[in-house]
Parts: sequence; C-alpha cells; structure tokens
Amino acid sequence: MNFKKLSEQYKTELLENVLPFWLEKSLDREHGGYFTCLDREGKVFDTDKFIWLQAREVYMFSSLYNKIEKNQAWLDAADHGAAFLLERGHDGNFNWYFSLDVEGNPLTEPYNIFSYTFATIAFGQLNLATGNQLYADVAMKTFDIIRSKVDNPKGKWNKAVPGSRALKNFALPMILCNLALEIEHLLPKSLLDQLIEDCLHEVLEVFYRPELGGIIIENVCLDGELSDTFDGRVVNPGHAIEAMWFIMDLGVRLQREDLIQKAVNITLNMLEYGWDKKYGGIFYFMDRSGHPPQQLEWDQKLWWVHMETLISLIKGYQLTGSQECLVWFEKVHNYTWAHFKDVEYPEWYGYLNRQGEVLLSLKGGKWKGCFHVPRALYQCWRTLEDIAQKDLIVHVV
Amino acid sequence: MNFKKLSEQYKTELLENVLPFWLEKSLDREHGGYFTCLDREGKVFDTDKFIWLQAREVYMFSSLYNKIEKNQAWLDAADHGAAFLLERGHDGNFNWYFSLDVEGNPLTEPYNIFSYTFATIAFGQLNLATGNQLYADVAMKTFDIIRSKVDNPKGKWNKAVPGSRALKNFALPMILCNLALEIEHLLPKSLLDQLIEDCLHEVLEVFYRPELGGIIIENVCLDGELSDTFDGRVVNPGHAIEAMWFIMDLGVRLQREDLIQKAVNITLNMLEYGWDKKYGGIFYFMDRSGHPPQQLEWDQKLWWVHMETLISLIKGYQLTGSQECLVWFEKVHNYTWAHFKDVEYPEWYGYLNRQGEVLLSLKGGKWKGCFHVPRALYQCWRTLEDIAQKDLIVHVV
Repeated sequence: MNFKKLSEQYKTELLENVLPFWLEKSLDREHGGYFTCLDREGKVFDTDKFIWLQAREVYMFSSLYNKIEKNQAWLDAADHGAAFLLERGHDGNFNWYFSLDVEGNPLTEPYNIFSYTFATIAFGQLNLATGNQLYADVAMKTFDIIRSKVDNPKGKWNKAVPGSRALKNFALPMILCNLALEIEHLLPKSLLDQLIEDCLHEVLEVFYRPELGGIIIENVCLDGELSDTFDGRVVNPGHAIEAMWFIMDLGVRLQREDLIQKAVNITLNMLEYGWDKKYGGIFYFMDRSGHPPQQLEWDQKLWWVHMETLISLIKGYQLTGSQECLVWFEKVHNYTWAHFKDVEYPEWYGYLNRQGEVLLSLKGGKWKGCFHVPRALYQCWRTLEDIAQKDLIVHVV
Repeated sequence: MNFKKLSEQYKTELLENVLPFWLEKSLDREHGGYFTCLDREGKVFDTDKFIWLQAREVYMFSSLYNKIEKNQAWLDAADHGAAFLLERGHDGNFNWYFSLDVEGNPLTEPYNIFSYTFATIAFGQLNLATGNQLYADVAMKTFDIIRSKVDNPKGKWNKAVPGSRALKNFALPMILCNLALEIEHLLPKSLLDQLIEDCLHEVLEVFYRPELGGIIIENVCLDGELSDTFDGRVVNPGHAIEAMWFIMDLGVRLQREDLIQKAVNITLNMLEYGWDKKYGGIFYFMDRSGHPPQQLEWDQKLWWVHMETLISLIKGYQLTGSQECLVWFEKVHNYTWAHFKDVEYPEWYGYLNRQGEVLLSLKGGKWKGCFHVPRALYQCWRTLEDIAQKDLIVHVV
C-alpha cells in the first residue's frame, strides 16, 4: 500500500473538496450561524439550525485551525458560528436548545445532552485558537451542566416511568472519552484523570461484553446486567468502532499499550460482527440475539459509520502494526470512496440503502453537517502521513 | 374480476390464517394481555406490552364478534386483553401508559394520545359486545380526556418551545373520523354531530390542499398556512388514503355523496402521488417539495399502507363504480398479496425494502399487531361480497 499517496488523497479531499464546500455553502450571512440542510449541489433546502451541527462546525473549523494551519478563513468561519451560538443557542444559562429557526428563535427545548457536549468541544477548541477566556468559561460552564445531568440526561423530557426499567446508554461515556482530550487544556488534572478513568471503566468494563463474544452494546441495566429488551439488545457497530479510536487516543496519551491493544481487538470484532457479507458496508443497527431490530433503518449504510471505522483501523495499524487492521482498512476504504464520495459534486453522500445505492442525495441535513467527513479525512491523512514517514525510515535504514 | 371468489379469498385468509395466529400465539396466559412481538413463525421474541397494540387487539376481537358472528373464543380473547388493560394499562385515572413490561408494570409515561384513542374504540366495541356498562364508562372517560388534550396532545412531554413554530398534525382528526363511528352508540347526538363536523373540516379543508395538486399533508400551521419545514413538507400517502375510507364511511352514514366522491378523488390522487413507479408499492414518506425527507425509512413499503389502500379502493369502487378504483385495486391487490403474505407461515410480513424484499421477518412487533391485516381482510371481504351480490342482481336482471 502506498501510504504517501493515500495520505495525499485524504488531504486533498479535505482541503480542496470538503472544507471549501462548507465555507462556501453553509454560512448564513444574514442571520448568523450555518445552514446545514444542503442538497446534492449545496443549495439550502431547509433553514432550521440544529445545535449539534452548529456546534460541530464551530468545533471543526477551530480544531483544524489549531491542528493544520492558522488559516484565517477557518477561524472567521468558526467565529461566525460561535457568535450565533452564544447569542441564540442557549437559554441564557448555557442550557443548549436542540434547534432554532433561521433567525435563531428556539424551536426545540434543551432536552438533548449532546447539544451540550458538542458546544463544549466547540468553545474549548475556539478558546485554544483565540486565547479568548470567554470561550473557556462557556466550555467549562457547559461541561459542569453535563456532569450534573449524567444520571438523567433527558431531565423532565424523559418519558420513562421513574423507577421502572432503568438502562444506561453507551453514547455519553463514549463521547466523554473524546471530549476529555478536546478540552484537556481547560481541565484541572484531577478532574481530567477522574473523567478519563470513569469513561474507560464504562466503555471497557460495562458496555464491552466478553460474554457476548467481545462486542459493545448500546444499553445495559444500571447495575451492569444485560437487559433482554429492544434497547438492551441493540448493537450499533459504527458507534462502538468510533469509540475505539477515542480509546486509542487515550492509550497514546496515557502511554498504555493495553488500552490500545484492547481497542484494536474490539474494532476488529465489531467490524467482523457488523460487516454486511452480502452487499458490503457496515450495518447501522443490529440485535445481539438476532431478533428483528426496532430501527427500520437498521440495514442502511451511513457515512459516519464508515468514516469513523477508517480512523480506528488506520490508527490501529499505526499503533500496533496489525495486518488485520490494514487489510480491513483497504476494504473499508474501497467501499467508502466508491459509495459515499460524490464524483460530480462536492462533499459526500450520507445515506445509502443496504445495496449501497444513494438513499438521500443530501450533503447535509438535520444530522449530517461539517463534522464526520472532514474529521475523518483529517485523521486518516495525518495517520497515513505518519505511517508513510516511519515506512520511509524503515526502508532507508 | 370475479368478486365472489376474491371475497372468499379475503374471508378465508382472515378466518383461517390471521385470526387463528393471534388467538394461538399472542395471549399471555400467565400475566394477562397479549404478546405482540412475534417472529416469523409466531414465537415471542420480546415481552413488552405496548398499549396501542393491546387496545387494538381488544378492539379487533370485539369488533369482529359484533360484526361477523358471536364467536365465544373471540369474545374471550377480547375480555382477556381488556382485563389486563383495566388493571395495568392506566394510572388509575384512565391516563393510558405507552408501554408496560410483561407483568404489566408501567415503562413509558402516558405521553401518546393514540394509546387513548385505541383504548376508547376497544372499550366502546367491547361494551357493544357485552352490554357491560363499565366498558362504556371507560370508553367515555377516556374520550373526555382525549378531547381535553386536543390542543397539546403530548402535554408536558412536548419538546417544542412554547410559543414557537406551532403545527397541528393530521393524525388526530383522521383517527377521530373513525373513532366517531366506532363509539357512535355511546355518544349523545349533538356531540357526535359536532365531532364529525370538526373532523371533516380538519381533514378536507385544512390538511387537504388543492393548491398542492390535491394531496393531504401531515402538518400545517395552526392558522392553516403551509409550513416550509421538515414537518410541514412531509406527506404520508398511506395515512391520507386510510383516512379516505373513514370519510367514505361517514359519507354513507350521513348520506352525503359529495363526501364519498371527494374521498375517492383524494384516494386516487394520493395513490398516483405515492406509487413507486420503479419498483411498485407505495412509499412510506415523501417531501411535498421533492427535498430529502427526514425519515430514513421513507422508501420502505409497509403492510398497513397497502392494506388500508385496498380498503379505500374497493369501497371507492363499491360506492361510486369508479373504474379507476377497480384498476388500482387489482394492481395494489396483486402487489400486496405477492409481497406481504407469507406463504410458508401464518400472518403477513410488515416491512419490506423499496425493492419489495422482506426487511424484517416479524409478524408482530412494537407497532404491528392484530389490527391492520385483519381489519383490512374483513373490510375487503365484506365490500367485495356486497359488490358480488349487486353484480349478481345486475346480471340476473
């Protein structure tokens, strides 16, 4: 495999295709914030503003400004979204709404904790980019609210009868694994250590289930027992695999090879488990007992699942030299570029049917924004570049 | 078309295949109520009890007892579910939970108004079957609560910011069109007349939009204006078509041919609009502006959509002699029997992909129970029988 050439492919796609798309098409110059509902060609088809995606785009441009180069256009784009978020995105006390209308009037109550997590990493990275203390304060205030909501993230909008079947969900500890490193510069060491310890425990000792063949499940009982219910049986392979590169990053940060090796093993397990042997690609949802899943979209192939898998596989290879990771990377790379990249118009498709045909031709929507595609292109580019350099050294030596 | 033979086909399928399936497989003899999560062969794969489906099965067996024959097994099955619903299905004040566990402990709060509407028709029909006043009281108490919730069906679980974009939804007036006739025997005439007038107004003058080419949309602004938003653009052809046979029934009841003709026209419009010209079958969701729908399952083919369409088409033909209805009936009949009926095991599939292949092999689940298949088989059987008899008379004369 020509790692140098591959690395260039990811870099070029990021810098010349995907980032220009969002810079050109998504900024709302009239009302502030971003349009994210963009059709195949990039035309706005809906003007609602979803806080997940507003915050993720601020994060993306700030983060790439911090990591790639001090590109003023990227910082300006991040500032543009941050100003809107600060003015309109929350209730005055950093309770982040779920959605706003085009002008920024709130539409949906702050019921969704991931609006908070993405606001935290957005303002954390923007603080790093600008040194502006206000952004650090916003990130930390929001992070404090997240910590206060851990036990009942949906708050009063929770429809579960109190005291009835209580399940905890994988998404929050999984996201916190990543958030910890994104706002590391803002956290006191003791808090960071505790956060990382808690997340690692939850991901690797609660949601990871050796007795099920080494897969991660999405929901377990509060006491850690399995729940034989729709929620308790659901498996989301892409979600689990995404968490594994967060764990690998923590492994590097903590210099713990055991974490890295475990994350590589789980990545390979989940991929074997979730790969569609008939049509290729990774299933969206599965039932761990083989029963019919609740989610009608279970067999669809989603962009983020495949993008995140590419990151975990290439990092797995970089960090352990696993040939299995490399073989799988090539396979998932081929599927992803062949099916998700739109060769006629910029940015990538998000939603394919099981057969790999385009189900929705949008480039952005209520859930797809400036996030998974550019983040994965960046992560793969840099990881492949590092592998190529080491490869060169090996060959020269 | 041989209406007599077709009528027998629907009758036999109902009495010898579908009803025996639910009688044999769904009754929980240990804890009461019904299992509805049944796999292809009828084995229970999940034991949660969803009030929509509990109430619909009580309704179905009571209603067929009232309409077909005084079959004691059907009444016993209805009583079995009703006892469980009365004891465990509500909070003591006829606020109907959304779901219970196998023993009847509440899992999900009473946030969903359709738990109430299906409880109303269940106890209304069971009162008619038994003469037991208790059931009439339960139906009427529940109906009173529905009327008090019309303006904010989700109550405190509504996540829309108060005073923000307010939309009203087609489902409730559409269901009330049917509910009115199902509990007619319990309603004072003035209340019945008012209910019918209100529903007809909402369905035919608010959600039906001549300016969009004569389709029904799912959500409009409170003042009746169109809303160019995901919710405001969504079209659900099967939902609209189902409402049309409710309107035809009201047209017969009120002896208003104008209503019947309008319902036939809308049925044909919606079918033309929603028919998948590439693979056949009716799409689940569409966007009236041709934008990407929010629902990832938009292109799937669902059993209830096709069953309800058969009813509207055959009633349309029965009541107006429309040849278009007859041609479409034959086409939808062929698609439905070829794709949804399981020729190896009893009951019908519920979920197909766009291509018409089985997506989930379950016979019952969280949303599919003893309702749309038997109701449609009954309605088509009886309507075809009536057509066959009139046909015979015409030919004899």
